[in-house]
Parts: sequence; C-alpha cells; structure tokens
Amino acid sequence: MSRRKKIYEGKAKVLYEGPEPGTLIQYFKDDATAFNAEKHAIIEGKGVLNNRISEFIMTNLNAIGVPTHFIRRLNMREQLIREVEIIPLEVVVRNIAAGSISKRLGIPEGELLPRSIVEFYFKNDGLGDPIVAEEHITAFNWATTQEIDDIMALALRINDYLSGLFAGVGIRLVDFKLEFGRLYEGDMVRTVLADEVSPDSCRLWDARTNNKLDKDRFRQDLGGVSEAYAEVAQRLGIFKDPRSAFVEG
Amino acid sequence: MSRRKKIYEGKAKVLYEGPEPGTLIQYFKDDATAFNAEKHAIIEGKGVLNNRISEFIMTNLNAIGVPTHFIRRLNMREQLIREVEIIPLEVVVRNIAAGSISKRLGIPEGELLPRSIVEFYFKNDGLGDPIVAEEHITAFNWATTQEIDDIMALALRINDYLSGLFAGVGIRLVDFKLEFGRLYEGDMVRTVLADEVSPDSCRLWDARTNNKLDKDRFRQDLGGVSEAYAEVAQRLGIFKDPRSAFVEG
Repeated sequence: MSRRKKIYEGKAKVLYEGPEPGTLIQYFKDDATAFNAEKHAIIEGKGVLNNRISEFIMTNLNAIGVPTHFIRRLNMREQLIREVEIIPLEVVVRNIAAGSISKRLGIPEGELLPRSIVEFYFKNDGLGDPIVAEEHITAFNWATTQEIDDIMALALRINDYLSGLFAGVGIRLVDFKLEFGRLYEGDMVRTVLADEVSPDSCRLWDARTNNKLDKDRFRQDLGGVSEAYAEVAQRLGIFKDPRSAFVEG
Repeated sequence: MSRRKKIYEGKAKVLYEGPEPGTLIQYFKDDATAFNAEKHAIIEGKGVLNNRISEFIMTNLNAIGVPTHFIRRLNMREQLIREVEIIPLEVVVRNIAAGSISKRLGIPEGELLPRSIVEFYFKNDGLGDPIVAEEHITAFNWATTQEIDDIMALALRINDYLSGLFAGVGIRLVDFKLEFGRLYEGDMVRTVLADEVSPDSCRLWDARTNNKLDKDRFRQDLGGVSEAYAEVAQRLGIFKDPRSAFVEG
C-alpha cells in the first residue's frame, strides 16, 4: 500500500492504482470544499462516513440494475472501483428548488419543482463548472447523444430509487449530483455511474423539520456537519451506532 | 396616430395598437442598452436603420418560407406586425465564439465553433436572462417540446440563409439572437419569428478586417455605431446612400 501509485487527487478523494488492471482504489478524504474551492475545511470523519454511505447506495443501485463503477469497500476510507473514463459533466437532478437553481431562476428555496429536472454542468473548475445544454455537450463532443440519453435515463431511475430510499427513512431528496464514466470492456463501452453518492453530493432535508443533513451545513456554516452525515448513515441502517464506522472493517 | 394605445415599451422598441385586430405597430427607438440595461445611450438614427434592416431580413425570410410576424414597413421608424404571444426565450445561434460563450466556456473570441450551436436564455431582465436547457423550458412550461423543435428547425434555417446573405456582402455572421411568438389563427397556433433581426441582435464582422459592424461597438465603446449599422444596410443594398434612410417612405 505504501508504494502504490497516485493516479489523481481531487478535492475530497484520491484515486490510486488498483490491485489489478482496470481497477482503482478510491480513498475518501476529510476535506470539504465549497464555492469552487474558495472555502475549505477538514471535517473529522466525513471521509469514513461518505465511504460507507456511498458503498451502501452504489450496492443498492447495482442491485436494481444501475451499472456503477463500485466493486467493494476495502477498509474505513477506501473502496475498490472499476477504472472508467470520466465524462466531463456534473449531472444534477432536482426535485425541490435549492442552491443555484433558486438563484438563477428566482425560485424560492424549498419550492417543489413542477417535475424533476436534470441539469448538466461542464466539469471544469477553472470555469466554475458552468451550466450547459445538450447543444454544447454534443457540439464540443463531451458526450454523444447516445450517452446523454443513457445518462438521462439512469439519472431518472436513480432519482426514483433514492427518493424512495430516503423517503423511507424520513428524508427528502432535494437534489443530487452524479458523475458518469465510460467503462471499456473489450470493444464494448458502457455508461456507468462513477464518483460517489453521499451527503457531499446530495441535498437531504429531514422530512419533518426541513433540517439540513448534507454539505449545506458546511457551505452555510450551520455546524454539526459530521453529525448530520452520521445521522443519514444511521437512518439508512448502515450501522446502529455511528461510532462503529470508525472501527476497521 | 396621436391617440393610439401603447401596448408595451421595451428597451429599444415600442408596440402600439394596430389598425386592425390582431395587428400591432412596432416603433424603433434610438435607445441602446447593454449589460442588462446598466449601460444606456441614444444612438442617433439607429431606430431608422434597424427598421429598414429588419424589414429587409424579415421580407427575405418570409420569401424562403420562414413564418414571421412582419407585415410591412409603415414609415421611417414603424412597421406593421402581427400580434403574437411572445415565447419567453431568447434564442441565440452561434457560429463563431464571442461574448458570453467565450467567457462561460473559455473559448477565445473569434474561434470557429465545431458546429453551429443553438442556445436558449430565459427572457427575464430581473434574473439577467439566464441560460437554460430544454429541461427547464419544458418543466416550467415556457414552451412545449413541439415548439422547441420548431424553434430549433427555424433557427437553423435562418442561420443558413443569413450566413449566406451576409457572406455575399463580405460579412461574417458570428452569432445572433431571435425571439419567437405564438400566432393564433382560428383554433390553430403557429410558431413564427418575432421581434427584429438587426445589428442590435446580431454580431457581424467584416470578413476581411474582422471590424465589428454591430452593437458590440456600443458595448465596447468603439464608437461609430450608427455608421456601422448604415454600412450593413448599404452592403445589403437596402439603399445606395444611407442618408436616404432618413427620408420618409
């Protein structure tokens, strides 16, 4: 482990060379960033919780037939994943107005959208991840029309499943961000869910109190960030006692 | 004329009640605004030139089968148009990178785009006309999927025709903004080109010198705004002597 090769370091995760060709190890850091990395902090235990929550969600999505890059969790902070070519889009699914859509389109936060909306952002920190339309995606060849269709279909299935999953534990799935990758298998290429699904990438509100259980606690300096993430993990039944997350295995 | 009813006043035009039901009179002002109306000036003669240029282009587009709201020019500053319900979108067709796409996607001004790109902006001054995708347009019911398809097809035909028209007179059509409206005829509704097509709504560069012949002269304080507009009109053969534009008829 000590001499393994670092492939890529992002804001919240590191990718290392995996044990076999076509695999990688995804390491979850405690770093939190917001506003295009202008704001930064260390949230003790966040990486451990996101590793567990993302494992749980990816495993469940695999089970309903949504292809993902996830293979298995290795330890407290690492999971084994398939190596994919990341499609340079952040795919946001929104059910309730919050964050940038409230600001851009003047919709009060908390307002139920007329229907679920799928948005694409060009994944480019230097440009601040600008929102784009299919026209830009196909013109600049960031993804093919077929890939956009696949992504839309997968994003809506994931939204249905996760909306139900969270509703079952008293949480409203306000919105979430997904990333997809190209998985090459022989001469075939498949579009699969990549990255992570966690309170870093979702807006999750307590259904009764509208209390925020996600990264907005960090963005808006509300405090209790890791406690909120632990609450999500606990409600999902990932462990009875959140402290057990910090025990190896 | 003195007692006619004002229906709507925009930044560069006024709409008055027309002589018959279902018609309006579109009056072209000399007012120029930019950056969401933060910048404002009077450009002597601009309205007269835009009335003529827009008449010329709308007439030509009608002739190739692109439906428009245009009926006929009435005088130096006014044209008779059909009353339509404006679809709240600004439709931008881009051939060469300039303006907001250069900034948003980091593409140097003047770079040929891989293909023509059609963009939609939500027509809302209060929000600064934010860029939107089909997902937003249909979710918020600003236009139907059928209308979007009609608009895309019309926008691309208009782009082909105008690219040729301007190429023929040594001008590059960099990009342009269109607005469309719903024309109700009995129980039928048709999507037609509305508003105007003029150097206020197009980026036009001299093909040899890249000299700007459009509203960017105002936005960027380059001077010679009405002279540039007159140059466009003259090259299009609208009149031999631009001074004749200012003679009634």
